Amino acid sequence: MFAYLRDMINVVLIGSGNLAVQLANAFTQSKKVNLLQRYSRKNTNATYFSDKIPVTDTISELQEADIYILAISDSAISEFSKQLAFKKGLVVHTSGSIAMNALLCQTNKGVFYPLQSFSKELKIDFEKIPFALETEKKEDFATLETLAKALSKHTYSIDSQQRTKLHIAAVFANNFSNYMFKIAKDICDEHHFSFEILQPIIQETTKKLETMSPLDAQTGPAKRNDQIVIKNHLQQLQGEQKEIYKLVSDSIIKTCNQ
Amino acid sequence: MFAYLRDMINVVLIGSGNLAVQLANAFTQSKKVNLLQRYSRKNTNATYFSDKIPVTDTISELQEADIYILAISDSAISEFSKQLAFKKGLVVHTSGSIAMNALLCQTNKGVFYPLQSFSKELKIDFEKIPFALETEKKEDFATLETLAKALSKHTYSIDSQQRTKLHIAAVFANNFSNYMFKIAKDICDEHHFSFEILQPIIQETTKKLETMSPLDAQTGPAKRNDQIVIKNHLQQLQGEQKEIYKLVSDSIIKTCNQ
Repeated sequence: MFAYLRDMINVVLIGSGNLAVQLANAFTQSKKVNLLQRYSRKNTNATYFSDKIPVTDTISELQEADIYILAISDSAISEFSKQLAFKKGLVVHTSGSIAMNALLCQTNKGVFYPLQSFSKELKIDFEKIPFALETEKKEDFATLETLAKALSKHTYSIDSQQRTKLHIAAVFANNFSNYMFKIAKDICDEHHFSFEILQPIIQETTKKLETMSPLDAQTGPAKRNDQIVIKNHLQQLQGEQKEIYKLVSDSIIKTCNQ
Repeated sequence: MFAYLRDMINVVLIGSGNLAVQLANAFTQSKKVNLLQRYSRKNTNATYFSDKIPVTDTISELQEADIYILAISDSAISEFSKQLAFKKGLVVHTSGSIAMNALLCQTNKGVFYPLQSFSKELKIDFEKIPFALETEKKEDFATLETLAKALSKHTYSIDSQQRTKLHIAAVFANNFSNYMFKIAKDICDEHHFSFEILQPIIQETTKKLETMSPLDAQTGPAKRNDQIVIKNHLQQLQGEQKEIYKLVSDSIIKTCNQ
């Protein structure tokens, strides 16, 4: 084996979802990582992966590696890890909400959680993405950190309990804020405006947070406890949109008018 | 009067809140707008305004202008406009949720609504901000549009009924999404993480919307209808955070798993 390959971290990647696609692409471009092989049961999303990465659908054919990354669904982690018969190497999962000890393999265990929302369609620049890292054995941490640092400048040591809280915070920060944009678009569509009109206010919403706290950045009828506008808006909404408007406004009123 | 002053739109600005501050600063820098005077009952926020702009607290002292902009609270619009005794010029309000005919002045009426969330602390670049414009008299529209175009490239003709819907969409897109970030920060604070860790996922959330629809950009446990993660998260939340998590997740589940 060439010297430079010996210095690289040898990785086997399990899974073929959004995260696996993004990791595979990033590892392929890194000079510090050697993506030996990927495992995919049904070779899903094959077109998103480079065809230069050897692929297998058989666990017994997995190659010997430094780190095995399970980029698979939360519910599959325990079951899959149980099938890993080998005893060498570090097996990590990539989930925000699953404890490290859900891994039932015989090797050393860890967690390699990139805090981001992955879509296959959009190429992720890992450089700015925070990695929450955890290892069972202290001596494995440096290896896992080296792998994370090959992709990103931002790595954090975070244990399983803290990671769940971080995941919940990320659900609000990403999934739920995005759903507010989705409702806004529904209203635009229903009343024949272009969602484009809202783009500047949307971009400004997050730009503000680079210099202000969300509490300081809060504006709007609920912030001012403007009951006339709130009632007017509620009269024009129905169903879930109305329920969400009411609940979130009530919470903002309490927070900002204590 | 100098020729260039005759070609400029003469504006009197009423109000001293966030929007008035931002408009005053932008008008002062525009070569197409002559900010004649501003009106402020108690000269609130005086330090945020240039002291070169003449200020009055007396309605009868308002100068003759092409456009009078009421950047005052929704609830004050009718009452204030009723006190304007003059019959010349165009009086516009700047509210997203108030109908044009809430203006009770004897002059021509209109609406000059910049779709943005204004904070005094943050200087707004009006160039990208959409202006929703409406005038009672057709012949006033061009003047109001010229004023808006002095600040922004994005001007829209939108009537009072449509504007309310646009305002509701903006509440979701800006106020409510910001509140999701606020809850995320509360969770970080409570569990001693830096909110910094969430910055990349927050910035990515809105960056995605430049190329994807919010529905396509939706990710997370509710999108996947991952009941194990959702139940786990709900067990760790309380009060309003829990209620909002449940209501928004249920709505995402319905939307994405029909």
